[in-house]
Amino acid sequence: MTLRIAITPGEPAGIGPDLVIKLVQKSWPVQLVAVVDKTVIEQRAKELGASITMLEFNADDEPQPAPPGCLYYLQVNKGGAVTPGILDEINGLYVLETLRLASEKNMDGTFDAVVTGPVHKGIINRAGISFSGHTEYFAQQSGTSDVVMMLATEGLRVALVTTHIPLEYVSRAVTKERLTKVASILHDDLKNKFGIDKPRVLVCGLNPHAGEDGHLGKEEIDTITPTLNTLNQQGMNFIGPLPADTLFQAKYLDNADAVLAMYHDQGLPVLKYKGFGNSVNITLGLPFIRTSVDHGTALDLAATNDIEVGSFDLAIREAIKLATEKAQSS
Amino acid sequence: MTLRIAITPGEPAGIGPDLVIKLVQKSWPVQLVAVVDKTVIEQRAKELGASITMLEFNADDEPQPAPPGCLYYLQVNKGGAVTPGILDEINGLYVLETLRLASEKNMDGTFDAVVTGPVHKGIINRAGISFSGHTEYFAQQSGTSDVVMMLATEGLRVALVTTHIPLEYVSRAVTKERLTKVASILHDDLKNKFGIDKPRVLVCGLNPHAGEDGHLGKEEIDTITPTLNTLNQQGMNFIGPLPADTLFQAKYLDNADAVLAMYHDQGLPVLKYKGFGNSVNITLGLPFIRTSVDHGTALDLAATNDIEVGSFDLAIREAIKLATEKAQSS
Repeated sequence: MTLRIAITPGEPAGIGPDLVIKLVQKSWPVQLVAVVDKTVIEQRAKELGASITMLEFNADDEPQPAPPGCLYYLQVNKGGAVTPGILDEINGLYVLETLRLASEKNMDGTFDAVVTGPVHKGIINRAGISFSGHTEYFAQQSGTSDVVMMLATEGLRVALVTTHIPLEYVSRAVTKERLTKVASILHDDLKNKFGIDKPRVLVCGLNPHAGEDGHLGKEEIDTITPTLNTLNQQGMNFIGPLPADTLFQAKYLDNADAVLAMYHDQGLPVLKYKGFGNSVNITLGLPFIRTSVDHGTALDLAATNDIEVGSFDLAIREAIKLATEKAQSS
Repeated sequence: MTLRIAITPGEPAGIGPDLVIKLVQKSWPVQLVAVVDKTVIEQRAKELGASITMLEFNADDEPQPAPPGCLYYLQVNKGGAVTPGILDEINGLYVLETLRLASEKNMDGTFDAVVTGPVHKGIINRAGISFSGHTEYFAQQSGTSDVVMMLATEGLRVALVTTHIPLEYVSRAVTKERLTKVASILHDDLKNKFGIDKPRVLVCGLNPHAGEDGHLGKEEIDTITPTLNTLNQQGMNFIGPLPADTLFQAKYLDNADAVLAMYHDQGLPVLKYKGFGNSVNITLGLPFIRTSVDHGTALDLAATNDIEVGSFDLAIREAIKLATEKAQSS
């Protein structure tokens, strides 16, 4: 059966519409459906000198891929034109509605996954709605208490125990409870969503040299090691805590399915370096499949034709892979 | 003039002697002088089935490279044989004496640089001497109050504002004072020791996304930005603070001479990933040139012939480069 995947292009003044227009010039094996105001896409295509045919999405029709140059859409009215590069509070409300609808239609099974483009958190907040990110929004919409941020590129997956918090708070945020939840979600999703029979995960220490037997910090001894031992006794396979500066080497990574880093700047610099910026953000723990680009709105590049589709392309391909895996296993 | 470079092989029960024996089988353009008990090297060569001729070093002779298979040595008596892989407190005292002598003979100009092999901090401390690392030891021996740890591999140099401290303390250790000292030493040494006319340095933020305008931490606004502004007003060129997860990409690195990371696991994972483990540790701010391997004693590999000389080789080559630069500019 042909899969159906929702796409939210994100902030309309940014490069999201450009990316979608560029990506549908080739054929895809699934039905991609942009949750969008069709005039936003049509206007941007005109500005880019590109041609696109918008096809109205009907959930009752048999799913089928669109021909190259065509895009299915599920209409969300934005109201008013978009000026490329210029933020507008109205855009913020519109973007949020595209996310709400995409979430709802993933929850009810209309779609098999959602792929998100870049949003601008500031303009959504300025529109009067507290919004800290896609991940948190989808968690809330789906009634999920704990989700895990994982980034992936060819040959490397990195999941994070803590994400967007000040470095100062990281140590106390790495609790047995949090680590247990994140590690369990990671294990379960690698197994069930990625089809890895016995996931093997390398775990970074929190401190330099993973604490060097307590000389450089006690969290490894007090928190991380006992938690991993407990999880491993339940049949999981977490190796560590290991020094983060030596763990990211082929001889270790080649036998691992993922790395679990304790915090943002411990795990992501290597991943993005390795992926040349082409990485995909995957939210684990949600009741549906969600992947995302891993870059911002690039307001200055909107409508310029000077964009790289790599990350969005990878995000769609990863969503297809995960949705296929899910369809086959259910 | 031929340069003279001291080598301290480090812990005799580890792979330091093996590395030195392997490295002097090829010819070098400088006079390498091991500060060592010659019997330690001769014994290990026998265990390895390698041949080596030890040549007594005399500071009054004209410096000249040793032929392949030969090694100059400056004797430090160890007393007793070494068992490969087995630590002994006597080794700790011996290792410390090799470092003291190498330091003294660099301070008095006998040598143009020192290259250090791996030591075992634990056994030196167990021998009753408080020892937290080469870097701190050489700083103390030379009366230097502030030194900077920098790691380098082909195409990338990373210096650290803080080094071996628990992650929990990093935020408060990144003070204006510390950052000013580290950045100044880095700038001066890149200019004077590396011969870079106007060093351009990318600086990581402390927090994820470099604090995202204060939403993810205030240290960038309160400490880092004002400090960099002050330094730049004095004619230096520090760019940042930048998000650490996106900074390590060719488009940024290609125009930079170094990266200044705020802490150990922010900067070193990428560097070691990029260098496949072949990186060299360079101490900046010392009155003499010091480079080092960037791995441990690997006790289990001593006398096995199963070793990689990459990092030690690179450390010697980097020392030669720096000493040549210094000789030419003085």
